[in-house]
Amino acid sequence: MPFEPSASSIDADRLWADLMALAEITEPDRPWTRRSFTSRFAEGRTWLSNLFTQSGLAVRTDTGGNLIGRLEGRRLLPPIVLGSHSDTVPSGGRFDGAAGLLAAVEVARAVVRSGHGLDHPLEIVDFLAEEPSEYGISCIGSRAMVGALSPDMLSRTNAAGERLSEALARVGGSPSALEWTTPPPITAYLELHIEQGRVLESSRIELGIVSGIVGIARIELIFLGSADHAGGTPMRLRRDAGVAAAEVVSWTAKQGALTAGRSRGHFVATTGIIEIAPNAANVIPGRARLVLDIRAEDAEEIDGFIRLLDRQSLEAAQEFGVERERFAIISKTEPTRCDPYLREILAHSASKFGYSTTELASGAGHDAAFVARIGRSAMLFIPCLEGKSHSPDEWSDPHALAMGTATLYDAVRSLDNADSAN
Amino acid sequence: MPFEPSASSIDADRLWADLMALAEITEPDRPWTRRSFTSRFAEGRTWLSNLFTQSGLAVRTDTGGNLIGRLEGRRLLPPIVLGSHSDTVPSGGRFDGAAGLLAAVEVARAVVRSGHGLDHPLEIVDFLAEEPSEYGISCIGSRAMVGALSPDMLSRTNAAGERLSEALARVGGSPSALEWTTPPPITAYLELHIEQGRVLESSRIELGIVSGIVGIARIELIFLGSADHAGGTPMRLRRDAGVAAAEVVSWTAKQGALTAGRSRGHFVATTGIIEIAPNAANVIPGRARLVLDIRAEDAEEIDGFIRLLDRQSLEAAQEFGVERERFAIISKTEPTRCDPYLREILAHSASKFGYSTTELASGAGHDAAFVARIGRSAMLFIPCLEGKSHSPDEWSDPHALAMGTATLYDAVRSLDNADSAN
Repeated sequence: MPFEPSASSIDADRLWADLMALAEITEPDRPWTRRSFTSRFAEGRTWLSNLFTQSGLAVRTDTGGNLIGRLEGRRLLPPIVLGSHSDTVPSGGRFDGAAGLLAAVEVARAVVRSGHGLDHPLEIVDFLAEEPSEYGISCIGSRAMVGALSPDMLSRTNAAGERLSEALARVGGSPSALEWTTPPPITAYLELHIEQGRVLESSRIELGIVSGIVGIARIELIFLGSADHAGGTPMRLRRDAGVAAAEVVSWTAKQGALTAGRSRGHFVATTGIIEIAPNAANVIPGRARLVLDIRAEDAEEIDGFIRLLDRQSLEAAQEFGVERERFAIISKTEPTRCDPYLREILAHSASKFGYSTTELASGAGHDAAFVARIGRSAMLFIPCLEGKSHSPDEWSDPHALAMGTATLYDAVRSLDNADSAN
Repeated sequence: MPFEPSASSIDADRLWADLMALAEITEPDRPWTRRSFTSRFAEGRTWLSNLFTQSGLAVRTDTGGNLIGRLEGRRLLPPIVLGSHSDTVPSGGRFDGAAGLLAAVEVARAVVRSGHGLDHPLEIVDFLAEEPSEYGISCIGSRAMVGALSPDMLSRTNAAGERLSEALARVGGSPSALEWTTPPPITAYLELHIEQGRVLESSRIELGIVSGIVGIARIELIFLGSADHAGGTPMRLRRDAGVAAAEVVSWTAKQGALTAGRSRGHFVATTGIIEIAPNAANVIPGRARLVLDIRAEDAEEIDGFIRLLDRQSLEAAQEFGVERERFAIISKTEPTRCDPYLREILAHSASKFGYSTTELASGAGHDAAFVARIGRSAMLFIPCLEGKSHSPDEWSDPHALAMGTATLYDAVRSLDNADSAN
């Protein structure tokens, strides 16, 4: 007779108190900041490690620098893995990453409190450096776990000249052992996260079952013109790199909206970085740099957009007499489908407690996308206020977090029962 | 029987040597930089003051901080004034300002060498801070001379908190006496300057007679949107300030080209400053700031363009769901016509020596525009390489400088003869 959790199996107050306590470990002048590889980050991990221990979990750090708490199961099975990350962007929020980690800890405590242990071991992973790090790479820990952290990536340096391999060793990883590390067998990976969008909030739905995690392409474009005097240079003799860049920015927004309208999935295109030089009122821009971010659930939509962008940016350069000095795909990840079986379990658990759900794509990248390479992986979204994320204003309701955590707990129980029965 | 100069009255080698010597007084790590009010600027003026003295000129500093060298005339007449400026922009060139000043010194030396003095006194003015200063104001000395340096301007501060009035006193001006200073009577003002454009070079014409100096309007525009996550925010829910700004940049270039094509004079419109925030690849721009520079010989063309820009930027804000938080004319000067009589004299002097000339507008602001408020004022342009100015690559040919200086000398002689005869 399997143990049946209820929504009140979760101690929502304690979970919230944990979340607020971890948030306090921040750069004091820049809340909420806990950048990977910093002493503040190490302080957060010491706190988390203590919490793991107090919650009855055995603590270790793997070769990829991931901090792992483990609750043994009754049987020798691959673990059910829950996780997220404790690092933040600069001036980030208190929920992105931390909410999923502490929800997982509360699930482990609920298991212990129930007196009904699991057949499977339960592991909670604080993935190293999910956010873009000072070494120019994100999802370092999950890449390492699945064998996708290349020697090239390990040799990248931060502004101070430290290599990622050195930094990884500093936080307890074993960079030299990475090439012999075999990805661990897992039963399933589940991650709770704030939505970082407005779909749930605007449709008043309580929880999101993530259908897939978008692929992300980053394109860097540089136009070179001539930084001539804004007064003395007739319009017809100009080579204005700023105008060519502006054409690309406008086109990206318009073509992006068209593509999104036609897409069956999630598609977005953004020009997030626009920089011109010399950037002086009386000088025609001689150089302009753009970084575009293109995301979709369908890899072909990304590739198609990049092809059009390539053509359009060349035309813009030609039209304004400037040179397109650079058009480079600086990074590209493939879209990931979340595991249908796990999605079904999550939806079923939510409905048991009467929580409304919808399927939606994750527009942000997550460690879950890398973990999907080695096993079943899925994500559960809780709403966040006005879609705000990567911002001190990031906010999620305590009740929403409790609903998500109860669902996560129930899903773990279901998985444990179902997979043990096989 | 008036004295008739020849093209060889000018010592081109000495003039060139002077120009290169003054250029050497630069911030060593940032050639060619002699920012107004700095110790390097003071060093330049000490050098110039010595040159004035060696050239037989009496040196004084007026209430507006202008350094003046004076050669007495035979009669008590208002002086013929030549001038330009010894300050530079950061990483500027060796010709903008300095060429005109040292050409004027060579004219004075030519007068002395000839043994035929002038009826009129000849004054050479190094106008204070023609370039945009750290106090946010340009043409400080010429404004002061004509009574256009307001108490409000004098109270502006630099980044260190020093007031312009304090800085002015520091360089030998008398800020407290400015309000009782009467603009000096002058016979005429002539200024030689590099073109800072490509009209002369591209048409292979040796000298430019400046028809007028453009009026300049600077417009600051700020759009406020919402800095949402680039992944999680669907295209239809975005409030992208960067896209609204890009629309304005594109429109300005296209409408500017149209207006220039229709204009009977010089018209240019430039977006020289484009800044977005937070300027991160994965965040939709929540704020965008533009500074536009609009210049024309016809004041109505500037006003008309500003009216269209006002409407277009509101429409762009509306189209992309952002707020146009600011639309401000941050500065505006009126166009100035150069004196027809002086233009005729300059053209006549050039033709005497067989130099080709054309009339053209000055797309840059100059002290001559302020001096025009108190008397006849005109300018003579010499070609510069590829129109480059405000750049270390700024270059003008020694021969071109000599032709301009010979023309200037002859024009001074003509003025002296004509005006004395009246």
